[in-house]
Amino acid sequence: MGETTDKLTELAKRRGFFLQSSGAYGGVAGFYTFGPHGATLKQNIENAWRERFALEEGHQEVDAPTVMPEDVFEASGHLDGFDDMLIECGDCGATHRADHLIEDNTDIEDAEALPLDEVESLVAEHDIVCPDCGASLASRSVEDFNLMFKTNIGPGSSDPGYLRPETAQGIFVEFPLLKEYARGQLPFGVTQVGRAYRNEISPRKSIIRVREFTQAELELFIDPEEDSPDINSVADETLSLYPVTEQNKEDGQVINRTVREAIDEGIIESPWIAYYLGISKQWYQSIGVDMDRFRFRQHLSGERAHYAADCWDAEAYATGDWIELSGFAYRGDYDLRKHDEYSNEEFTIFKQYDEPITVERPTVDPDMSALGPEFGGDAAAIADELERLTEDNPTVFETADDSVTVDIDDVTYDVPLEHVNYSIEEQTESGEHILPHVIEPSFGVDRIIYTVLEHAYREDTVDDEQRSYLALDPQVAPTTVGVFPLMTQDGLDEVASDVAEELRRSGLSVAYDESGAIGRRYRRQDEIGTPFCVTVDYQTLDDDTVTIRERDTTEQVRAPLDDLSTILSNLRDGELRFSEIVNE
Amino acid sequence: MGETTDKLTELAKRRGFFLQSSGAYGGVAGFYTFGPHGATLKQNIENAWRERFALEEGHQEVDAPTVMPEDVFEASGHLDGFDDMLIECGDCGATHRADHLIEDNTDIEDAEALPLDEVESLVAEHDIVCPDCGASLASRSVEDFNLMFKTNIGPGSSDPGYLRPETAQGIFVEFPLLKEYARGQLPFGVTQVGRAYRNEISPRKSIIRVREFTQAELELFIDPEEDSPDINSVADETLSLYPVTEQNKEDGQVINRTVREAIDEGIIESPWIAYYLGISKQWYQSIGVDMDRFRFRQHLSGERAHYAADCWDAEAYATGDWIELSGFAYRGDYDLRKHDEYSNEEFTIFKQYDEPITVERPTVDPDMSALGPEFGGDAAAIADELERLTEDNPTVFETADDSVTVDIDDVTYDVPLEHVNYSIEEQTESGEHILPHVIEPSFGVDRIIYTVLEHAYREDTVDDEQRSYLALDPQVAPTTVGVFPLMTQDGLDEVASDVAEELRRSGLSVAYDESGAIGRRYRRQDEIGTPFCVTVDYQTLDDDTVTIRERDTTEQVRAPLDDLSTILSNLRDGELRFSEIVNE
Repeated sequence: MGETTDKLTELAKRRGFFLQSSGAYGGVAGFYTFGPHGATLKQNIENAWRERFALEEGHQEVDAPTVMPEDVFEASGHLDGFDDMLIECGDCGATHRADHLIEDNTDIEDAEALPLDEVESLVAEHDIVCPDCGASLASRSVEDFNLMFKTNIGPGSSDPGYLRPETAQGIFVEFPLLKEYARGQLPFGVTQVGRAYRNEISPRKSIIRVREFTQAELELFIDPEEDSPDINSVADETLSLYPVTEQNKEDGQVINRTVREAIDEGIIESPWIAYYLGISKQWYQSIGVDMDRFRFRQHLSGERAHYAADCWDAEAYATGDWIELSGFAYRGDYDLRKHDEYSNEEFTIFKQYDEPITVERPTVDPDMSALGPEFGGDAAAIADELERLTEDNPTVFETADDSVTVDIDDVTYDVPLEHVNYSIEEQTESGEHILPHVIEPSFGVDRIIYTVLEHAYREDTVDDEQRSYLALDPQVAPTTVGVFPLMTQDGLDEVASDVAEELRRSGLSVAYDESGAIGRRYRRQDEIGTPFCVTVDYQTLDDDTVTIRERDTTEQVRAPLDDLSTILSNLRDGELRFSEIVNE
Repeated sequence: MGETTDKLTELAKRRGFFLQSSGAYGGVAGFYTFGPHGATLKQNIENAWRERFALEEGHQEVDAPTVMPEDVFEASGHLDGFDDMLIECGDCGATHRADHLIEDNTDIEDAEALPLDEVESLVAEHDIVCPDCGASLASRSVEDFNLMFKTNIGPGSSDPGYLRPETAQGIFVEFPLLKEYARGQLPFGVTQVGRAYRNEISPRKSIIRVREFTQAELELFIDPEEDSPDINSVADETLSLYPVTEQNKEDGQVINRTVREAIDEGIIESPWIAYYLGISKQWYQSIGVDMDRFRFRQHLSGERAHYAADCWDAEAYATGDWIELSGFAYRGDYDLRKHDEYSNEEFTIFKQYDEPITVERPTVDPDMSALGPEFGGDAAAIADELERLTEDNPTVFETADDSVTVDIDDVTYDVPLEHVNYSIEEQTESGEHILPHVIEPSFGVDRIIYTVLEHAYREDTVDDEQRSYLALDPQVAPTTVGVFPLMTQDGLDEVASDVAEELRRSGLSVAYDESGAIGRRYRRQDEIGTPFCVTVDYQTLDDDTVTIRERDTTEQVRAPLDDLSTILSNLRDGELRFSEIVNE
């Protein structure tokens, strides 16, 4: 995974960003706990996401359970299709992802798209062995393994439940009520930030491929014929794009296009997807993802879900590889149509026409007082069949001379047209029921946290001493300011403690530290990415000023105590740069 | 459950506070989704909790997985003891909690504390029938049913995992690292806000007894011999207490005592518990729980966990009954001791003495060059036994004449004292390893949300029209201000829309509404608990003032647009009362 990943993982555990859970019991692969700094960083990133993708867009958030019943996943397709390829070693019993073994041992790149039997043959053909014990896997079968965690709701096993593999289903299933809350008006968006689960066969790469993770998803429901995004607001944003056409070339490159150009040149088909790539780029940049290690990659046709018309991923280079941070899919009406079919509720929305329209509807009104005597017990069935014909094939009535032929259970009846009472009625309709389409930007919070940390990891030399630090953006850094007394004597510690308390009251995230040499205290804050440190020294007692030190440059300025909370708040919110106060 | 509960549950679903999940598939008992207003109310309450119990107390928050391995729950005792009494109807197959059936059908109040066979006998004795189908349950067995949701981690069933029944275990298991983050200093506290799960046999009462819920827990680790809370800060707070002594009386009453009095009179044994009851009362009051329907009840000895020295619940009267909102337990060293015993790590903390102490330690240093020739192959075992004796029974060496007797596998050896080299050494020790004690305030977020809503529910008559509204505290209300144009003409809607946008930018939660009569728009906001509504009317165009209407009194005042965001922010934060601007 590379040296930086190792160093970062060590730092993350030692300083409380993240750690493998239940380590005292040997740990469990794929489960991580966010320690104090990591939990705060996570909250800051989640809140920044909410701010941009829910509040600023005018969308509303819901909070649904993580356990859902089987019916939901039967409809969504997860019960049948949410599988990975499993191969088990006959010797040591270890389980592996067969497609990963193929990719690791051959030139094949997208083994996941291959059928099971072909993968089985490839394992034999290439003499692939168990990575754990070295035994041959050639004779082992490759099977589908469903990635949902299964459990039982209530006593017994009659009500299976599943840990949701994505937060999205918690939104889709409640569409019949959500559309009411939106007063039946498209477009509207619903977001959710919460846990999702995938029972990975081989969790790996720190917090990148885990079994329990946090997603931030937005489901935008649109009328595909009417609604379009506010492209102008992001039209000039330049995107690094890696479309299918470039991926398929021998020397394919990432190309730079503005949102507007990408639409005009047909690189991104859906303006909605282009819009979300635009605001997502701005957002990733704002939380500190390095734009030189960031791109949008279009899904190859093989990796795209069958219902997705187009799909792009935001990718970052981290852990020595490109990893997916978020997906942007045009899902069409797939999700709502499936739930509409499988459930007892309507997942459509009533779309009002600009003006009511008049339609012609053929109708029949069979004269039962005539059909009864003529056909006896078959009269009712004949009337039903006449009504069916009206809907399916009304021309029968228009072209008939004086009777129509009706077939019921291989018996043919001639029904006189005069008893059918066929007519064409004009009806006024004010609208129609449509299935909205869905645009889904879906973000993996844990991977974003990892990327933000790895992209912020720096090493340099300060005062002839090697230093490692996290150059986190002040808006997401877990602690905004460290407050230190130069020494714990002559009342310096009391003043510093008061300063810390006051900054805390003004809403800043503050760490107070009085133990050890001042240089050591700076290093501690540097290592957890605290952007600013305030030191109370002897001059403070004279003139009520303190030093503010900036993490990356280690430059210091003096500032009056009275302005301190305003300066620091502005520095945190990006309304002031440190260089501006240095030059004053 | 009472009329208010029914009305509130209907309102909650219709307006998007909470609803039974997956309703399109018939719903699943015990799982609820928070709709847009509910999710925001939940976030506001969680953030208010964090503010008070984490930030203000100086504690740190972690974020652990919801799925944990079996080892953890073997140690915690949940695997064995986290059961409810299950009885299944032989006719219809419905399952019920046997203890609830006893309580519903007899005078017995605390059936949960009875042994299984006694409950079985009571069912027969009282001819209790299945509440669903009426069949006799007399011959049915009563069994323990474990309330944890079980699943499998990875392929196969060799690694069972459980959905955590409380967030607490995610903190306890990481104590070895958490103590490092706290630099080994007691006391320190760690909080967590997250999902927990209990596979209830009979979920009931709206969102009160559900299968998936959110807890906000604080684990405070203390040195029981050294640490004490800052009682002075809450000493004068008056608590409504319902101690065991009163509960056991025929005419027992809730008694009012200040925190100080409750400690001095011995009503609350632990000052830590008294401290947390004090700040919790203040907090519950601040988020809008009605103090006339609130009390702290001490656990009866039967309901207390065996390890808890003392336990109190915060209870609110809601759904026609007293319901538990939070528990405050003195857990002693139970949790850390269990994990220390069951895991591979140390769950102790090194406690430094004020001054190093000198202790006398008996030692032996067997002379192997003498024992070897004398005892041959048994010499090593004899030396081991001598060392064991030194620890277990050193007086043997002090009282011996010139040899000591050692038994190994029924053979007795006489070892000359001169070859034992027994002596007493003085050692300096700077401290000792201790198991910290735990104080646990644990809050049920969903129940708090329910209570806040029910206590806020009001009905009155405005303009001869029946009105129902939620008198939510402005600090937790999902929407702080509704902004309306009086009419959608003459530019009023544009001005109003700008006002809404500006208020949003100043960090307020704003709803813009221009549809329907103004009275109807007020009612909509009243019903979701929006405390203030701003209306842009024709006078606004003349003098840049708007009306602000207060929800509960429906009183209105005019205010200049320039001051609007400041006034509303202060009203929300409780720094200004509406009556103060009315009287101006």
